[in-house]
Amino acid sequence: MRFASDNWAGVAAPVMAALQRANEGWAPAYGADALTAAVKQRFGELFGREVEVFLVATGGAANALALAALTPPWGMVVCHAESHIQMDECGGPEMFTGGAKLLPVQAPAGKLNPEAVATALRGFPQRPPHGCPPAVLSLTEATECGTVYTPDEVGALCALAREHGLRVHMDGARFANAVAALGCHPADLTWRAGVDVLCFGGTKNGAMAAEAVVFFDPALARDFAFRRKRAGHLWSKYRFLAAQFEALLEDGLWLRLAGHANAMARRLAAGLGALPGLRQVYPCEVNELFVVFPEGVAEALRERGATFYPWVTPGDATGGRTQRLICSFATTEAQVDDFVRQVRECIDAR
Amino acid sequence: MRFASDNWAGVAAPVMAALQRANEGWAPAYGADALTAAVKQRFGELFGREVEVFLVATGGAANALALAALTPPWGMVVCHAESHIQMDECGGPEMFTGGAKLLPVQAPAGKLNPEAVATALRGFPQRPPHGCPPAVLSLTEATECGTVYTPDEVGALCALAREHGLRVHMDGARFANAVAALGCHPADLTWRAGVDVLCFGGTKNGAMAAEAVVFFDPALARDFAFRRKRAGHLWSKYRFLAAQFEALLEDGLWLRLAGHANAMARRLAAGLGALPGLRQVYPCEVNELFVVFPEGVAEALRERGATFYPWVTPGDATGGRTQRLICSFATTEAQVDDFVRQVRECIDAR
Amino acid sequence: MRFASDNWAGVAAPVMAALQRANEGWAPAYGADALTAAVKQRFGELFGREVEVFLVATGGAANALALAALTPPWGMVVCHAESHIQMDECGGPEMFTGGAKLLPVQAPAGKLNPEAVATALRGFPQRPPHGCPPAVLSLTEATECGTVYTPDEVGALCALAREHGLRVHMDGARFANAVAALGCHPADLTWRAGVDVLCFGGTKNGAMAAEAVVFFDPALARDFAFRRKRAGHLWSKYRFLAAQFEALLEDGLWLRLAGHANAMARRLAAGLGALPGLRQVYPCEVNELFVVFPEGVAEALRERGATFYPWVTPGDATGGRTQRLICSFATTEAQVDDFVRQVRECIDAR
Amino acid sequence: MRFASDNWAGVAAPVMAALQRANEGWAPAYGADALTAAVKQRFGELFGREVEVFLVATGGAANALALAALTPPWGMVVCHAESHIQMDECGGPEMFTGGAKLLPVQAPAGKLNPEAVATALRGFPQRPPHGCPPAVLSLTEATECGTVYTPDEVGALCALAREHGLRVHMDGARFANAVAALGCHPADLTWRAGVDVLCFGGTKNGAMAAEAVVFFDPALARDFAFRRKRAGHLWSKYRFLAAQFEALLEDGLWLRLAGHANAMARRLAAGLGALPGLRQVYPCEVNELFVVFPEGVAEALRERGATFYPWVTPGDATGGRTQRLICSFATTEAQVDDFVRQVRECIDAR
Repeated sequence: MRFASDNWAGVAAPVMAALQRANEGWAPAYGADALTAAVKQRFGELFGREVEVFLVATGGAANALALAALTPPWGMVVCHAESHIQMDECGGPEMFTGGAKLLPVQAPAGKLNPEAVATALRGFPQRPPHGCPPAVLSLTEATECGTVYTPDEVGALCALAREHGLRVHMDGARFANAVAALGCHPADLTWRAGVDVLCFGGTKNGAMAAEAVVFFDPALARDFAFRRKRAGHLWSKYRFLAAQFEALLEDGLWLRLAGHANAMARRLAAGLGALPGLRQVYPCEVNELFVVFPEGVAEALRERGATFYPWVTPGDATGGRTQRLICSFATTEAQVDDFVRQVRECIDAR
Repeated sequence: MRFASDNWAGVAAPVMAALQRANEGWAPAYGADALTAAVKQRFGELFGREVEVFLVATGGAANALALAALTPPWGMVVCHAESHIQMDECGGPEMFTGGAKLLPVQAPAGKLNPEAVATALRGFPQRPPHGCPPAVLSLTEATECGTVYTPDEVGALCALAREHGLRVHMDGARFANAVAALGCHPADLTWRAGVDVLCFGGTKNGAMAAEAVVFFDPALARDFAFRRKRAGHLWSKYRFLAAQFEALLEDGLWLRLAGHANAMARRLAAGLGALPGLRQVYPCEVNELFVVFPEGVAEALRERGATFYPWVTPGDATGGRTQRLICSFATTEAQVDDFVRQVRECIDAR
Repeated sequence: MRFASDNWAGVAAPVMAALQRANEGWAPAYGADALTAAVKQRFGELFGREVEVFLVATGGAANALALAALTPPWGMVVCHAESHIQMDECGGPEMFTGGAKLLPVQAPAGKLNPEAVATALRGFPQRPPHGCPPAVLSLTEATECGTVYTPDEVGALCALAREHGLRVHMDGARFANAVAALGCHPADLTWRAGVDVLCFGGTKNGAMAAEAVVFFDPALARDFAFRRKRAGHLWSKYRFLAAQFEALLEDGLWLRLAGHANAMARRLAAGLGALPGLRQVYPCEVNELFVVFPEGVAEALRERGATFYPWVTPGDATGGRTQRLICSFATTEAQVDDFVRQVRECIDAR
Repeated sequence: MRFASDNWAGVAAPVMAALQRANEGWAPAYGADALTAAVKQRFGELFGREVEVFLVATGGAANALALAALTPPWGMVVCHAESHIQMDECGGPEMFTGGAKLLPVQAPAGKLNPEAVATALRGFPQRPPHGCPPAVLSLTEATECGTVYTPDEVGALCALAREHGLRVHMDGARFANAVAALGCHPADLTWRAGVDVLCFGGTKNGAMAAEAVVFFDPALARDFAFRRKRAGHLWSKYRFLAAQFEALLEDGLWLRLAGHANAMARRLAAGLGALPGLRQVYPCEVNELFVVFPEGVAEALRERGATFYPWVTPGDATGGRTQRLICSFATTEAQVDDFVRQVRECIDAR
């Protein structure tokens, strides 16, 4: 009955084991250790090219630091109106960039599209130095609405960004879920499509607290070490960040965990889809489901102890009635089935 | 043929005379002089209550400093999508507030309305500490589209703001034009309606470089002296800022100058309104006119030396064909009539 | 031979065990879990009063966020010229405070004293709004030079701070070592002496990545949740921060670990003190030792694989020849004795 | 009897005349006018090379914006402990740079010297990313203590800066007084000696409110237009900033005005030097005099209506008894002589 968020789950067993293994003897602080070097190399292998990788503990830090590397303080970050950087980070991107402006763009199902972005840019003409010059296009993969961009869709948006001189940031808090769902190579969703920086999420996918900022253009990473340090995001015992990714990247664990979460959400969607009067708001493409329950059912479920959050955003067209259900690596089939059963009971009891 | 902006005009003669008068002997620096005290008192008389007044040289400084006094760095400023603070100040509000987020809201003719604001707030639910809490409602009077809020309209928006715990900022770069157009008492448009801080513009209305930040609630002004100083906006020879307002506030000069500019715009609207194929985009309520010329006419006018700017914003529904024409205190009837004549010629020549 | 830093050690076994225990089932994210509540209560018991406690992963974050709660962006933070916030955090305090000024004050052995602070304040007269008004006195306990303030010394500095209207911040990255060394009650070193906010370090004392910002005046903590969130320092799986302090505060583990580190440093000091030509720069009061080795010995030790850092700061009077040796909870007597033996050999071999 | 500051004087007549002249007809806003172009060319001629020039209204803005162009937000600005940017701008440099650290260095008579700077840099070793990397050396010419750097002295400091990879900023609020005193070419004190950016003061030297930020390396000026705009320091009626410098640079007016102020200070020094019991604290090299009056005399003078400020800074060795006397372009011989006479009377009356 725990569908509040993928961050209500704990740490996947192999990640915890890696933390234990890393806890041997001494290691140089601040990332000068061997494990960190090995993990960086793993990321290079994963993406099939040289990358610069910086580890931090939270997605908010990863996004804000990455954006700060891409825009001057007076630049503009074009993003979805319902993106995490716009709605959920308490102004972190504005703080870390030194005051950059986020330009929220509305588009269906949490997904930006070239038309919407082009219209937004047209409406904000560049008349230096009066308006903020657009500097970054930020995409979220998978989106906040549980949908995914295909490699082609990412490519088309990046091409538009390039035309306008924008860099591309990808908030990949659920990147693993997107790759698992699409079955594509991670490179196809990122640098091959034109993405400059990826925030590769670990925390929602079985890590304790670990996110990787992956730069595909090392030149952009030049100042990152300073930015991370002054923001208090450089761990002294850095090897314990590295260990989490060591585990996730070992034998594709990251994809197995995400794939499982996706499968649980599909099972949930299938189970709920068979029930009367229940509306699914967005397609279920990764590990999230957005539904409108019949009147009174959400309340009844919460009384029974179920946990999930209402989903109210600028794009809401359900009068605030949408509920978000999230599955994680730790969700079981039994939990899903039990929840479906209880929803059915609550509907029947009306 | 100069309709590019009211800031292409120079300094009104009485303002220049006041600058001359102020240039006598020594005076304490940084606003400790007698003229500054007198001007502050004038503002109090004008608004019929005690006020705190701080003078700066630009409207961008006035707005950014005023907003910084109203919102914490993680707060949100609700504003029109086409407002000056959103589109024309290169991120100044974000810089001075320490990273506050501007939430752009679209509404017709540059004017916010309670429904649009309420919808925007509903779409950005407060879940502290995740989203930026809304902190300020910013109104522009007169608006960027040359329209005005009536006292009742301001009052309704302020009431909504109060309900949600927001402070109200008024960008009054063309406040004089609004008051002159509405014929109301300046208090009716501001503190009596619920406005907390007014940026009272001088520069577009015949000053050289002078704007007054007027706090109706002195408690909000507590830190302002520090904010202004560190931003480099405290003049050492402050009396020369005060002198400009001394002249403007003397015998209602500010209203006469603005009223003249308004009258010239009305004359322009009347003259152009009689021409075929020309569309007026927004009602002409102050000193600005927004028109779509027949195909080719804008270009032909520019070839003849006319100056005016295209008006492209998020709310544009004319495919980028709107042109903005602004009159100032210095615009003459002859200039207006000559321009109308030339427009007619260009239309006829098509 | 590992004396580079206390953060080269790993995680103390009871802390790792607590992380394992915390990894059971689901828990609400962002600190709404039961373990977090329990740990907050523990801190209250430890300090014998109500406190507000916020956990973050790094000392840099703890300090910068705490300072931001105490000073306006234009305020001044009086600190030791060799303090961590001045020398080692890459401008984090300046960033998080929105631009506050650090006023470095020199005084012997890393310890501020009332005379030095009073002189610094006298030399920076308040002429609002021209100079930055002093807002915070920051003390480091134990100091960067491995010395400690007694409760009376803290009290005298806090009294001076109060006279001048300053709040008091304590950087307690090695607070445990200070308390263990002084044998006093933690309250005596903090709120009873006048400290407003303590950054209580866990990481250098056996945690993986955990620091507690402890507010003794809850009113000062009002905005902290927002500040932490926007800085990306709010963990979603917050219980894993709490678990680390659960272990440290259980049965006085924090004092036992710190006491051990202190004892190892004393043993090191005693062992090296018996050697010829070796000079101890500061008194060894906690877990750090600062020495000048005879010519060539530091190099010889490094060739043998020993790790320790040179200590060069504004207060250095040894021409850059001081070396810093740090012991941790994980340092063993055998390691100390072996190092002493090798130093002796290197000296003898000259 | 007005010796409080050079900014208590008004506007020099030729500057006021230029403002009047500039007030003719329309002109493009924001510096796109012909007068601005002409003034920029004048600056190029004055310095004998291509320069980029940006005009703002205050010295605080000029300094803060110039520094922001030279240092990253995590960089360090080495400056004199008594410099204006450290003591008098309320944290403006910290704000505009996005949080850079000022490292105050003490040295006699307000003048940095290579030894003092080298010592300061040695005490702040670069261990990226831990400490703030030094990025800028800031010199004040003439200094806050009324002394001057010779071209050779500037050159030696710039050479040291270059060795350490620092850019050089010159706060020239009283640059005119320094050039007038030294009789050198302005290029010799600036770019030929290695200065990157000069803040060329106008306000203290007869302007109303005008300072020029002069970049000798145009590459450094790349982002300046954005920085100035977002800080609210781009005047719309920019020609009125340009006009002030048009007047100052015409026929060497800037040097004549400064030379007169210097001469008045020398006359004051000579007059007071003949009086018993009066101590001059620093050599009188430009238009400022720092004296310790005999006990009770400062108070007696103030009772007679004289205005001057006490001078209390970190370097004060007079127990707070130093008084600062400043002459301006508007100071007359009669005023000086009258003041000397009154000082004599006050001394005699003791």
